Amino acid sequence: MKHYAIWISYDGGQYSGWQRQNNSKSVQQVIEQALKTLLKESITIHASGRTDAGVHATGQCASFQATTPMTVDKFLFALNNRMPSDIAITALKEVPESFHARYSATGKTYVYQLYTGRESNPFLNRYYAQVKKPMNEEAVRHAMTAFLGEHDFVGFMASGSQVKDTVRTITDFKLNVVDNLWTFEITGDGFLYNMVRIIIGLLIRVGHGDTKSDEIEAIIHSRNRDRARWTAPPQGLLLKKVFYPQNAFKIEDNS
Amino acid sequence: MKHYAIWISYDGGQYSGWQRQNNSKSVQQVIEQALKTLLKESITIHASGRTDAGVHATGQCASFQATTPMTVDKFLFALNNRMPSDIAITALKEVPESFHARYSATGKTYVYQLYTGRESNPFLNRYYAQVKKPMNEEAVRHAMTAFLGEHDFVGFMASGSQVKDTVRTITDFKLNVVDNLWTFEITGDGFLYNMVRIIIGLLIRVGHGDTKSDEIEAIIHSRNRDRARWTAPPQGLLLKKVFYPQNAFKIEDNS
Repeated sequence: MKHYAIWISYDGGQYSGWQRQNNSKSVQQVIEQALKTLLKESITIHASGRTDAGVHATGQCASFQATTPMTVDKFLFALNNRMPSDIAITALKEVPESFHARYSATGKTYVYQLYTGRESNPFLNRYYAQVKKPMNEEAVRHAMTAFLGEHDFVGFMASGSQVKDTVRTITDFKLNVVDNLWTFEITGDGFLYNMVRIIIGLLIRVGHGDTKSDEIEAIIHSRNRDRARWTAPPQGLLLKKVFYPQNAFKIEDNS
Repeated sequence: MKHYAIWISYDGGQYSGWQRQNNSKSVQQVIEQALKTLLKESITIHASGRTDAGVHATGQCASFQATTPMTVDKFLFALNNRMPSDIAITALKEVPESFHARYSATGKTYVYQLYTGRESNPFLNRYYAQVKKPMNEEAVRHAMTAFLGEHDFVGFMASGSQVKDTVRTITDFKLNVVDNLWTFEITGDGFLYNMVRIIIGLLIRVGHGDTKSDEIEAIIHSRNRDRARWTAPPQGLLLKKVFYPQNAFKIEDNS
């Protein structure tokens, strides 16, 4: 039995999300089915975290155990060959038994894309949330700084989550604006359920003048889900990278 | 009764094509349904031409008759409001009775996008045909020149088409290559059914060395569908622009 990690890129538009579910097509299910066809055994894969329906990824990571005589190059090629056109396995690595895509992760970077043009654009719709009103860039940039550092983000967690420790550290939060296309990139040691989308939802309110950028700090400190307001739509969100310590991949040499 | 033309942009990925059909969702049907809801009458719209399932458009044009007290600005706004996120009505104009989106058209420009990277990219899949092998740019550019001018393109028409006059003139054929992304832009006075996709299919063969660029002229002159070989996939194709003579829009002043 060997241990593997795979890196996955997917357009989430046609999926019910990462997680296997009855009666709907998930990314996890598609990959597990391909592994079953390929290796003739049922394999459960563990991702760094679930992504919701419509959310995309270029750097999702998942780990699993399997028995195969294939080299990693052959295994990657064979698995990728069984993927539909909206999922690609970009890398495959043998990892130590101790590696777990979720528990070994030390951080993540998400990207969120917004289109602020008044006219709807059918070709941006799949990867951008359309807000249809210009936003105040200076106010948004000011509001973003309030999220940096360690905070209890319980007010930015979707209800229903069972997570108890809601303190997270945001280490980087960038924004790139080109005409009507806004790209946020946020990095932290972890994110609560829907946390990025709730943060972006509040920043959209700031951009439109519905919430003042000076209020953000107080809203975070209030730890009140109602004050953070709405959740930005899924299609703008993309899981870009999952961070692991270098030694998480080190396989002990027992010879 | 007034006469109108609308310009339409759509992501064809979720549609069975332009033309209304039973048991499947078409772009025409979605727009006609919106017009019916809005104007309380059944209206048939006529496009410049059909697009197949999966084919996109940024400059499709369609004409129809309707009775409404709305100004064109209000009509455009109201109609656009009823569109799903993958269809946008980008303009609406009152036109003379003589205007017909198909019969008044004097030319069209299509774009075809190819991705030649070896690794599949889930995010390009919707708008690019993936050929997964590098192509010889010089050979393709040389082959493209053979299509310019007036030719009988009967060999580049999908079987089943009822069109009798198969002579068309290609006035411009451009190619832009950036890394693995190839964008063709072809303009002519008209295109037969699947003509652009069959031309691109042959150019892909040239790019991969399966057909010599010197043979293209003979293949066109052979008027033989079998020699033109295969049809490139639909998702790379986009109807960019339909040309009309300026006077096609001129409404006679009867006052």
